Amino acid sequence: MGVVIPMDEKERGKASLQPLLDLTSTDMGAVNGEILSHATSHVEMIPELAGHLINSGGKRLRPMVTVASCRMCGIDDDLAPVKLAAAVEFMHTATLLHDDVVDESDLRRGKPAARMIWGNQASVLVGDYLLGQAFRMMVETGSLECLRILSNAASVIAEGEVLQLAAQKDITTTEDAYMKIIDAKTAALFSAAAEVGAAVAERPREEQEAMESFGRNLGVAFQLVDDALDYSGKQAELGKEVGDDFREGKVTLPVILSYRRGDAVQREFWSEKLEKGLQGDTDLLQAIRYLEEHGAIDATVERARHYGAKARDALAIFPQSALKSSLIDAVDFCIERVH
Amino acid sequence: MGVVIPMDEKERGKASLQPLLDLTSTDMGAVNGEILSHATSHVEMIPELAGHLINSGGKRLRPMVTVASCRMCGIDDDLAPVKLAAAVEFMHTATLLHDDVVDESDLRRGKPAARMIWGNQASVLVGDYLLGQAFRMMVETGSLECLRILSNAASVIAEGEVLQLAAQKDITTTEDAYMKIIDAKTAALFSAAAEVGAAVAERPREEQEAMESFGRNLGVAFQLVDDALDYSGKQAELGKEVGDDFREGKVTLPVILSYRRGDAVQREFWSEKLEKGLQGDTDLLQAIRYLEEHGAIDATVERARHYGAKARDALAIFPQSALKSSLIDAVDFCIERVH
Repeated sequence: MGVVIPMDEKERGKASLQPLLDLTSTDMGAVNGEILSHATSHVEMIPELAGHLINSGGKRLRPMVTVASCRMCGIDDDLAPVKLAAAVEFMHTATLLHDDVVDESDLRRGKPAARMIWGNQASVLVGDYLLGQAFRMMVETGSLECLRILSNAASVIAEGEVLQLAAQKDITTTEDAYMKIIDAKTAALFSAAAEVGAAVAERPREEQEAMESFGRNLGVAFQLVDDALDYSGKQAELGKEVGDDFREGKVTLPVILSYRRGDAVQREFWSEKLEKGLQGDTDLLQAIRYLEEHGAIDATVERARHYGAKARDALAIFPQSALKSSLIDAVDFCIERVH
Repeated sequence: MGVVIPMDEKERGKASLQPLLDLTSTDMGAVNGEILSHATSHVEMIPELAGHLINSGGKRLRPMVTVASCRMCGIDDDLAPVKLAAAVEFMHTATLLHDDVVDESDLRRGKPAARMIWGNQASVLVGDYLLGQAFRMMVETGSLECLRILSNAASVIAEGEVLQLAAQKDITTTEDAYMKIIDAKTAALFSAAAEVGAAVAERPREEQEAMESFGRNLGVAFQLVDDALDYSGKQAELGKEVGDDFREGKVTLPVILSYRRGDAVQREFWSEKLEKGLQGDTDLLQAIRYLEEHGAIDATVERARHYGAKARDALAIFPQSALKSSLIDAVDFCIERVH
């Protein structure tokens, strides 16, 4: 099970998150307790708003990666893996709260976004609170190296969000520019989530770099598949609406590829719908038709496979173990969920 | 000069920030360099937006307190005071960016607020970036205790902002409730700014607590005088408009006192103008008349003096020095600027 099997040799649809879920379940129970205990405040609105998002059924993939990385690197106390994983999840939650304000999103994980219930103002401030709490938990681990990795990630994520904001209404965004955006806004946290395990275990530099690379490539693959899913029927099963990115005028890789491969009429379509936001009822269907015509969804998933392969190979230097296999399965799962 | 002179024995208007400015000028030059070097990014909008606020003529009182505290506590290398002070200023700047979004403010320090030029979205994200950079600078000092103090402050500040948001349109906010808000949203950062100096110098606990108390009480006094200034002609000299708090419906101590001391007609006035926001051209003048009628501005400044006295006395355990005197002068200056 732990052997790295190239995707095309492997039966599709078999990859599962279950091994990782099973191997981290005890730790993740403790992470959940840590999350709940740090989402409290004597200020009523904070646990209400934070709880709305925390209990909304996220996969908690990032903290699971942290816990698995810590354990695979030989940490045998319970404090560091749990604190670091909870901190990673809080950084993610804070980002989601601010993202929804910036994107003016109505829904998050199939439920009304926090800002629709408590307002933009509270979402901004509770995001700030959760980020502060994330740093408090990191401090409790006593690892300056983990603080360095995660504070660096906090800056890079925000940089990526600003980059995305600038590109949001620009249909001529290149694939290279887009890859820089997702490397920062999504992959930086996955990368830090994985790297801190090796860092807190004080493993040799090459292992820390391997975990960093694993996380970063997994993050890129994850985001690309998310982009593809946004235009796929599978999306509805994940508690999201098909076409959220389209409605929000987000220029993602499927659109970038379709725009570049399309003719003048199609380019005008993308510009009008995404840059100018002039959307009617049937435009999403038309968009999906153009994406399919140019194989843009498949090409996006193919790109994701490339990063998935890099993520798997990054783990090659670690000895065989059930945890390592479960992380490889998680990479495959992230990509295969598109089918 | 270093002797603690009660305000009423001291000639008014003599307190000056100059000694503190002089004694910290070399360090603050380095802090400025540190700030500029961490406000950069390959993402163009970040240095533009951050620079707008960083160069807008803030007093940099908080980082000056950090530098003075570090030096008074005997730190003789240059790294920690400069990094910590720059981190404190970035935390403050991030808070201002988010505050202006939350308060929908048009102006900041007499210039258009960043959100009026670059938008709310960019202000939220660049605030996040600066907070990330603040933590990166703290990590560079290598002091887990400073990270503990400042990450705790980050959470408490956000809690205070949420509390204020809930109280914003509530004219029946009590003085006690209001004091809790400013203790969190303003005093927590002053307190941390002062405490980190003793912490990084590894001074005995009683000195760290003394610096914490100095900063906290200075912060409360500073905020109360700010609240009073908002209804005073002196405000215009400070690059702000008179009545900003009034227009934004902020329930501050002068209003709380005037509301409680007023009759039913006056209470209805405050409710209509601040809770419901039904303001006409002459309402600010009427508000100031009510505040004067009840001596609410003077009472607010009197409360500030109380905290100023506590701040001065907190420093009593430190031996006499030019730096100590300059910090005491700074307390007096913060209060006397109202005249």
